[in-house]
Amino acid sequence: MLGLMQDWPLLCHRIIDHAALNHAERPVITRSIEGPIHTTNYAALRARALRVAQRLERDGIKLGDRVATLAWNTWRHLECWYGIMGIGAVYHTINPRLFPDQIAWIVNHAEDRVVMIDTTFLPIVEKLADRLKTIERYVVLTDAAHMPATALRNAVPYEEWLAEADGDFAWKYFDENTAAGMCYTSGTTGNPKGVLYSHRSNVLHSMMAAPADAMGVCSRDVIMPVVPMFHANCWGLALTSPMIGAAVVMPGAKLDGASIYELLDAYRVTFSAAVPTVWLMLLQHLEATGRKLPHLRAVVIGGSAAPRAMIQKFQDEYDVEICHAWGMTEMSPLGSLCTIKPEYAALTGDAKLDVQSKQGHPPFGVEMKIVDDDDRALPRDGKTFGRLKVRGPSVARRYFKEDSGAVDAEGWFDTGDVATLDCYGYMQITDRSKDVIKSGGEWISSIELENLAVGHPKVAEAAVIGIRHPKWDERPLLVIVLKQGQTATKTEMLGYFAGKVANWWIPDDVAFVDEIPHTATGKIQKTALRDRFKTYAFPVAAAE
Amino acid sequence: MLGLMQDWPLLCHRIIDHAALNHAERPVITRSIEGPIHTTNYAALRARALRVAQRLERDGIKLGDRVATLAWNTWRHLECWYGIMGIGAVYHTINPRLFPDQIAWIVNHAEDRVVMIDTTFLPIVEKLADRLKTIERYVVLTDAAHMPATALRNAVPYEEWLAEADGDFAWKYFDENTAAGMCYTSGTTGNPKGVLYSHRSNVLHSMMAAPADAMGVCSRDVIMPVVPMFHANCWGLALTSPMIGAAVVMPGAKLDGASIYELLDAYRVTFSAAVPTVWLMLLQHLEATGRKLPHLRAVVIGGSAAPRAMIQKFQDEYDVEICHAWGMTEMSPLGSLCTIKPEYAALTGDAKLDVQSKQGHPPFGVEMKIVDDDDRALPRDGKTFGRLKVRGPSVARRYFKEDSGAVDAEGWFDTGDVATLDCYGYMQITDRSKDVIKSGGEWISSIELENLAVGHPKVAEAAVIGIRHPKWDERPLLVIVLKQGQTATKTEMLGYFAGKVANWWIPDDVAFVDEIPHTATGKIQKTALRDRFKTYAFPVAAAE
Repeated sequence: MLGLMQDWPLLCHRIIDHAALNHAERPVITRSIEGPIHTTNYAALRARALRVAQRLERDGIKLGDRVATLAWNTWRHLECWYGIMGIGAVYHTINPRLFPDQIAWIVNHAEDRVVMIDTTFLPIVEKLADRLKTIERYVVLTDAAHMPATALRNAVPYEEWLAEADGDFAWKYFDENTAAGMCYTSGTTGNPKGVLYSHRSNVLHSMMAAPADAMGVCSRDVIMPVVPMFHANCWGLALTSPMIGAAVVMPGAKLDGASIYELLDAYRVTFSAAVPTVWLMLLQHLEATGRKLPHLRAVVIGGSAAPRAMIQKFQDEYDVEICHAWGMTEMSPLGSLCTIKPEYAALTGDAKLDVQSKQGHPPFGVEMKIVDDDDRALPRDGKTFGRLKVRGPSVARRYFKEDSGAVDAEGWFDTGDVATLDCYGYMQITDRSKDVIKSGGEWISSIELENLAVGHPKVAEAAVIGIRHPKWDERPLLVIVLKQGQTATKTEMLGYFAGKVANWWIPDDVAFVDEIPHTATGKIQKTALRDRFKTYAFPVAAAE
Repeated sequence: MLGLMQDWPLLCHRIIDHAALNHAERPVITRSIEGPIHTTNYAALRARALRVAQRLERDGIKLGDRVATLAWNTWRHLECWYGIMGIGAVYHTINPRLFPDQIAWIVNHAEDRVVMIDTTFLPIVEKLADRLKTIERYVVLTDAAHMPATALRNAVPYEEWLAEADGDFAWKYFDENTAAGMCYTSGTTGNPKGVLYSHRSNVLHSMMAAPADAMGVCSRDVIMPVVPMFHANCWGLALTSPMIGAAVVMPGAKLDGASIYELLDAYRVTFSAAVPTVWLMLLQHLEATGRKLPHLRAVVIGGSAAPRAMIQKFQDEYDVEICHAWGMTEMSPLGSLCTIKPEYAALTGDAKLDVQSKQGHPPFGVEMKIVDDDDRALPRDGKTFGRLKVRGPSVARRYFKEDSGAVDAEGWFDTGDVATLDCYGYMQITDRSKDVIKSGGEWISSIELENLAVGHPKVAEAAVIGIRHPKWDERPLLVIVLKQGQTATKTEMLGYFAGKVANWWIPDDVAFVDEIPHTATGKIQKTALRDRFKTYAFPVAAAE
């Protein structure tokens, strides 16, 4: 027997409708790409989003078509998202930091028909234009006065293009499972993979993000999403903010410490979210200038692990509460947020930081489990670690144009991370599953060994990789870059681990190197490192 | 084109799964019907809910079957809800305060197969048992030691019944639109009407209720739902609390001021919700004893309008923030909550109370509009009032076993209330639509005139009803009960309105009476009053 409640599909444009009616005058402030600060509000933004929808329709864009955006966080980018979604087309955010070849591959794979592009990114696309077969039009997100000369096909300044629509238009209505947004995730191997968000997944994700134990934002907040809209769906903030009626400050193209500080201060931002790199720049700026953060209440840090010292500095020196978060493009992206549950509410100092260094706990709507290599669930004891699998209405089940699903028979998505879960639901990443070292059927966390090694006073950087071993399958090799002018022996280095980890975790050998390879985003490139040591064999004594 | 996210139906038992995994040890404390305080937690509650599900299945209860509950707020009632929903059966909460005839009618109409019943309510049902044709079994919510003698069919103490299931059981999975719960609403005319909640509507409603601008609750809260589970779905708190992992204090059968205070104090309750009558009893107890409320952070008041003086007293004398709320059984039930948006954040004193006296603003997922008699939308100016219509995923579209829908062609449900909406989304009820007086095509609020009239020092109670008028269709008649020993003239009474309302709002005549009829819940019974004055005609002078 079915219930008798209304059929009210979860459509993303209902979010901007709600904001325009109930939070009409709430400001949306942008540091525009042209320079000046631009201010609008949700009522005006919705009106322009309707014009975007109307204008796209006139260009022949229809249900299911992909419209790419290559743009910073601005009010224009925001109204484009709603306008695109409001006719059932799909916003496809492209990360301009990708290699040009990847961008070309992604645009062609997505079969984007239109690109909405900031002037900043024109040079990238101009070099690729010949290879972008499906693009019919480039809408440059500026006005006629600021329109650069460009040979891009049918390029038009956004404001002129938009002026051709009068806004006398109504949203389209369709199934809530209709595609709404798209974001490619670039793994370390193979081609990028397209994640295809639905209206339903975006709306549910926004509802999951709002409460106190997740983002914890409300209509009295001024939210600055520094995390770009092209980075993993802007961590949901482009939808959560209007849903709850918060004011929004969009940082545009300038993400340096001074520029971010200026906006935080001038617009009394209470809540922000970004990767550690951004906060590092801000903290350096604050230290250099002696400024404080009297308005900022809370900051979400994700994208990569939040350094403990960063959490501590924000909280102790600037009275800003840090929420460590974890997610994936495939998860819309929120997976866990590290707010403090009552069991930990009395903690202070190091004990609190220990908790906050974890990636947090899942909100309702995200299921997590850890499993061993045979897919058996492992205990939630905060110590045992296993492959982290997730499930939920805002988790991907398949990549765009892939024939096979991305989930197992029970619907679980393998995150590729190795983690612990504790009895309160807190998750901590201990490794990537391809980096974990499998020794005699047990797992050794490469990250934990690396974190220990860099604690040695002579070590500048350390990496641990698994090396084939005749008896144990794999054993850890410690790769070390010493600090300038230091010398050390293998025995000295390995002795440092004694008493700090189980004996069988201690690496079997040490390789001193001049440099450890890094990815574009500064992470250790384990694949390259493994490649370099692919012919390495442990000394005979160690191999026994 | 559809998105490629996971199909993860919104099922209510996923809520208790989430709580049991992520908030396992959070306490659920009950003042038991037997007397002592009982403590359990979400992990244990889920385990027992699974046994309820398993045991119901053994009794032959299956998808779509209705299981009635006639019970106070206790841990047993809570685990019954989840157990019932977990096999796709429907919890049907019966309000024991209804007339026995209504209860019999409702049980037969719902075709309930089992009744889960507190010992308190056995006498009610024993008198009706012969008429309850569909009931196969009565499960009495107590243990064998406290089981009263009863002749009810197949009556069994809950704990014995439950002991026959070992809990080795898994929830059923089904479409999220499957019926989950049922609650009858008793209008002033006709038979009660059954509202049939779905799993989807219950889950979405809980997600709407949690954020700061709605209930504003989190895992660090200790929530006491004083509003009964048999009253309009417990305002969602039986689902929202485990969803966000809050501790719960269940007040059982004792809702008097002293008992409520005792729980608030002993278990450091931070958040509660109830009708004004309950809070009146609590405030009287506090005044009589000089106690304070150091732990209580916020209280939601709904069910009927929160008196201004009550809001003021809670906030000024006890430092408890009041959230005035409005809803309907047909809305799951939340419609609006009066949290303070930034536009009003600086208000204090009377200006703040003016806002808080409104019924509040809708969360995302509730659409509201006001319309005139021709169904044209009226302006959101905070002054114009019209019929309040609502729409959303947790609003009813049809009543149980009714052939015709309860919504208009565009899906709007008419609340039967007359209200204003302001530009910030705040709604204020000004009347019931059947009580509003339609004079010359314009509407006059009976409630506003009544509120004014009782401000007159000689008036004990006042009611205003519309009387047929040859020229204006209807004109207001003021019905007054004077205070003991007072006398007054019609001219004196009507003169009191001068300058306080528009001249054409002033009633055309006054009827002095000894008593005004009331409903069981203390509201003015306008139908009875109109009946009494059905032959009344205005004096000739007034009728011109």
